[in-house]
Amino acid sequence: MANLLSISCAVNTSPATRTYLRSHNKCVLPCHAYKACGNHMFPSIIIKSHREKPQRAIAVYATAASVSQDVKSISEAWSPQSPSGPIYNPKKVMVIGGDGYCGWATALHLSNKNYEVAIVDSLVRRLFDHQLGLDSLTPISSIQNRIRLWKSLTGKNIQLYVGDICDFEFLFDAFKSFEPDAVVHFGEQRSAPYSMIDRSRAVFTQQNNVIGTLNVLFAIKEFSEECHLVKLGTMGEYGTPNIDIEEGYITITHNGRTDTLPYPKQASSFYHLSKVHDSHNIAFTCKAWGMRATDLNQGVVYGVRTEETAMHEELCNRFDYDGVFGTALNRFCVQAAVGHPLTVYGMGGQTRGYLDIRDTVQCVELAIANPAKPGEFRVFNQFTEQFSVNNLAALVTNAGKKLGLEVKTMTVPNPRVEAEEHYYNAKHTKLMELGLRPHLLSDSLLDSLLNFAIQFKDRVDHSQIMPNISWKKIGVKAQTAPVQTS
Amino acid sequence: MANLLSISCAVNTSPATRTYLRSHNKCVLPCHAYKACGNHMFPSIIIKSHREKPQRAIAVYATAASVSQDVKSISEAWSPQSPSGPIYNPKKVMVIGGDGYCGWATALHLSNKNYEVAIVDSLVRRLFDHQLGLDSLTPISSIQNRIRLWKSLTGKNIQLYVGDICDFEFLFDAFKSFEPDAVVHFGEQRSAPYSMIDRSRAVFTQQNNVIGTLNVLFAIKEFSEECHLVKLGTMGEYGTPNIDIEEGYITITHNGRTDTLPYPKQASSFYHLSKVHDSHNIAFTCKAWGMRATDLNQGVVYGVRTEETAMHEELCNRFDYDGVFGTALNRFCVQAAVGHPLTVYGMGGQTRGYLDIRDTVQCVELAIANPAKPGEFRVFNQFTEQFSVNNLAALVTNAGKKLGLEVKTMTVPNPRVEAEEHYYNAKHTKLMELGLRPHLLSDSLLDSLLNFAIQFKDRVDHSQIMPNISWKKIGVKAQTAPVQTS
Repeated sequence: MANLLSISCAVNTSPATRTYLRSHNKCVLPCHAYKACGNHMFPSIIIKSHREKPQRAIAVYATAASVSQDVKSISEAWSPQSPSGPIYNPKKVMVIGGDGYCGWATALHLSNKNYEVAIVDSLVRRLFDHQLGLDSLTPISSIQNRIRLWKSLTGKNIQLYVGDICDFEFLFDAFKSFEPDAVVHFGEQRSAPYSMIDRSRAVFTQQNNVIGTLNVLFAIKEFSEECHLVKLGTMGEYGTPNIDIEEGYITITHNGRTDTLPYPKQASSFYHLSKVHDSHNIAFTCKAWGMRATDLNQGVVYGVRTEETAMHEELCNRFDYDGVFGTALNRFCVQAAVGHPLTVYGMGGQTRGYLDIRDTVQCVELAIANPAKPGEFRVFNQFTEQFSVNNLAALVTNAGKKLGLEVKTMTVPNPRVEAEEHYYNAKHTKLMELGLRPHLLSDSLLDSLLNFAIQFKDRVDHSQIMPNISWKKIGVKAQTAPVQTS
Repeated sequence: MANLLSISCAVNTSPATRTYLRSHNKCVLPCHAYKACGNHMFPSIIIKSHREKPQRAIAVYATAASVSQDVKSISEAWSPQSPSGPIYNPKKVMVIGGDGYCGWATALHLSNKNYEVAIVDSLVRRLFDHQLGLDSLTPISSIQNRIRLWKSLTGKNIQLYVGDICDFEFLFDAFKSFEPDAVVHFGEQRSAPYSMIDRSRAVFTQQNNVIGTLNVLFAIKEFSEECHLVKLGTMGEYGTPNIDIEEGYITITHNGRTDTLPYPKQASSFYHLSKVHDSHNIAFTCKAWGMRATDLNQGVVYGVRTEETAMHEELCNRFDYDGVFGTALNRFCVQAAVGHPLTVYGMGGQTRGYLDIRDTVQCVELAIANPAKPGEFRVFNQFTEQFSVNNLAALVTNAGKKLGLEVKTMTVPNPRVEAEEHYYNAKHTKLMELGLRPHLLSDSLLDSLLNFAIQFKDRVDHSQIMPNISWKKIGVKAQTAPVQTS
């Protein structure tokens, strides 16, 4: 049971210890304390919600064993959105990496949609920030506080298992305890630049992502072969071929014969490659073991608010704008807000698929509610629109003008190795066919993103904005200060 | 310098301590002893060759630092076989995995062709045998004895670095010491059944192979960007598509546009998948760093003798016939020799590319002598003929008859998940164009293989012959006796 940690919540009306909780934001429930305490319960800690909704404060217990039985009564009342038929009706969803950007939004969304949710996360993403001297634009609360507050606002329980999925003993126990019907797997090192800092980060990225996913596959095989794996892949697996990008497979006629084969992969960072490796591993287990899996090849996500994270400031999602974890559009909005020129890498013709984070959570929900069949390795391209970097810079420049911002653009040497002018046409119809209603990038969304960045502009660390991780210069020497410190 | 071990050889005429050496076959130079001894030299150990050739015995020193300077005088006299031009003329070849089946044959062959050779090997393949209760049909000498004998027979020096390439500090030191012009990388866990024993072996296989190869890529980038990587891939990366298999790339016309893309991969074991991952990683480094690499997608290798290993019984290569490491044709010959029915898995229509081990060494030599260009990721399909399992069973049955053996065939349930009847047509012209002169599977080779198996039939462990590792039954429980023990 090493590393296994779960939190259960029970209704408690005791008032006003929120200040106490806040002051212990990052240390009230440290991992090592759980490990040391075994099955002994901690004294309950009480929080009270600030919102107008019916007030419910919660007592938080930490135990070394999970308490899924506490949740059974909630799950009995469930009415999943789109049951897939009498045979397989997913109710319990494990969100691995549920403390991250997409993961947190997804966990809340699924909980809001009455799925029973457990978050599995090592919280190592927060460690990366410490080590690299980075921080989210938005202040983010601890995962423990987030979950307590969610419970207090909605009455909905989210279980938490803190640990590393590369530690199979931990993962094994989490599966045994929670018994998921579906697993959404965001639990990977997800930054291309991070994977290109130095050898040890490259190796970490591939080892962490590939072995973690292998462990998830084995856990599913061992505990619940019916369980549907929804795995976050990336559009970056395909690279930028000179032909249309299909959704996972392409039918090829060659020398008079025809077959439908996995779409060729040309990833361009050790991170993107790790996702390619995952896809091949998962495809094999679907064939060999009859696993059911959906690979969501996601584009670049932008935005910060979802219906759920907008409920309370302490549910706020992280928002990365730095050169390591920041994604293009989010980064541009912050740059515009603080008067930093938009940093276009190279010629700016790099074109990719993009989507609003509200569509990320919608896509995952659709994939879960309409699961892959046993033995099926299903691939969806998860984005809604294509933009080039220059397109995005122009959109942000115009939106900034309307808000009275003078937005400039600068060309910086491209730290990556990638085509800067290329054909790009990627299909993305399968999620639409399942019912996705996209939030396309509109003026109003850009306005709101820019206003959001302006709201937090005092938190911007200008030294984090410029890229300084080079695809070509990566070496074996450990980079102890890979981002600028002055 | 932890884990770094090198052996240098100097001529010594002291006689007849071969018996001493033999009695210490596996313990005379244990790794931990080197580690403990630092830079202190061991007392010299003298061996004498048994052959008729001019006798030269050698003194063996072990040091914690390499002694490449000792070899400079030899390298100065070199005349490489096929220099690739004035700019890049490989002389020094590091053979990673040089104690294995293909690796040992290759190391000797390259040494015989006047390349300066260093073997890098953790010797873990020998540990697998101990752990699984397996053994080579042929008695094999320790790597230290093999190298000493080679020196005594030919005067040619092979350096030895014993350590794990997943330990970058070790690999770093080996590169710095030897300064290779080319690296031949056989240093991977190479058995599909081994990778399907249990979760921990699956994870080991991918971690060992993928991270080891990443380390090799970083070492080359750090020390000698000109260095040519010759990486052993497998034809199994392609699976069995219903169209012709090309050499690494396929030109696809799709919706009116055309591109040449990596050939789609459909590997069918965690081992084969690890090679797919390697291929993607290497392709990326060629593009991003300008690496030069050749991926040799090798078919199933058969045979045991090469010109060099045939020089002396103590140079004999390993020969695996068991259900874990044995390859189809070698296994059939042993089965025929001991009167065990040939074990055809399933319908026997499984068709693959095959080649003689004499062609393996020839192909590697050709790849080194005609290196990839900087930035080029070159893929060769390395086999000479296609056979189905039923084809091979029929060939061995007929060859056995001629030797008076009654050979029967039995169908066993296929432990793998694979198509048992399928289209298979794989191209293999690129190595032919470079000058490969194949040793096709002939009656005389089959005779000699069968006679070889008969010669050693008293060493056959019948309990090792049947397959008992199931692609479907693999689980998370560690298999402590994955092969039959009775």
